Amino acid sequence: MEKIVEQGLLYDFYGELLTEHQKRIYEDAVYHDMSLSEIADEHGISRQGVHDLIKRCDKSLSEYESRLHLVEKFTRTKEKVHALKEVLDKLEDKAVSRRLEALINEILEEL
Amino acid sequence: MEKIVEQGLLYDFYGELLTEHQKRIYEDAVYHDMSLSEIADEHGISRQGVHDLIKRCDKSLSEYESRLHLVEKFTRTKEKVHALKEVLDKLEDKAVSRRLEALINEILEEL
Repeated sequence: MEKIVEQGLLYDFYGELLTEHQKRIYEDAVYHDMSLSEIADEHGISRQGVHDLIKRCDKSLSEYESRLHLVEKFTRTKEKVHALKEVLDKLEDKAVSRRLEALINEILEEL
Repeated sequence: MEKIVEQGLLYDFYGELLTEHQKRIYEDAVYHDMSLSEIADEHGISRQGVHDLIKRCDKSLSEYESRLHLVEKFTRTKEKVHALKEVLDKLEDKAVSRRLEALINEILEEL
């Protein structure tokens, strides 16, 4: 997986376990695609400080994943839901099919 | 929710974030229903030590839940899956219904 996509996914699941300070800087790097120098300027810390903080966050998020496997489970669940929707598409009774699909979408939103 | 049920549920989701030592003692208390004195004897620590460790684990597990809400999401998802199964039961095409139910059960196992 591309590194920035993987970081984004790990952050989606475990970001709330980082400190507010870590979250702000990590989001600047991963979501706002800012350079180390830009982030350093914005937060008034050194470029090296930003670099180290991001590395520590990466390590911390990966450690949570290695223990809880939420991203792994989510990826597998999405595949299964996809298979479920393919079966639904073939249902004759479209009203029931729509009702089931609505429920499945609600479940997806919880994940 | 009964305290021991709530502790078990939180432990199911976040137990892997505790240390091995914490896990052993917490499991003795929550799953094996051992008394503080029994656990203290087994692990060669004081009764007070066991009490404090369990309290710290409770706090830690609740803190993870307040950040990640996995138990809350799981509970809501289970309700939705239940609703989904009720609709499936009414499907005319039993072969499709069984196929869908099998997929839903696979999804449940991932959660």
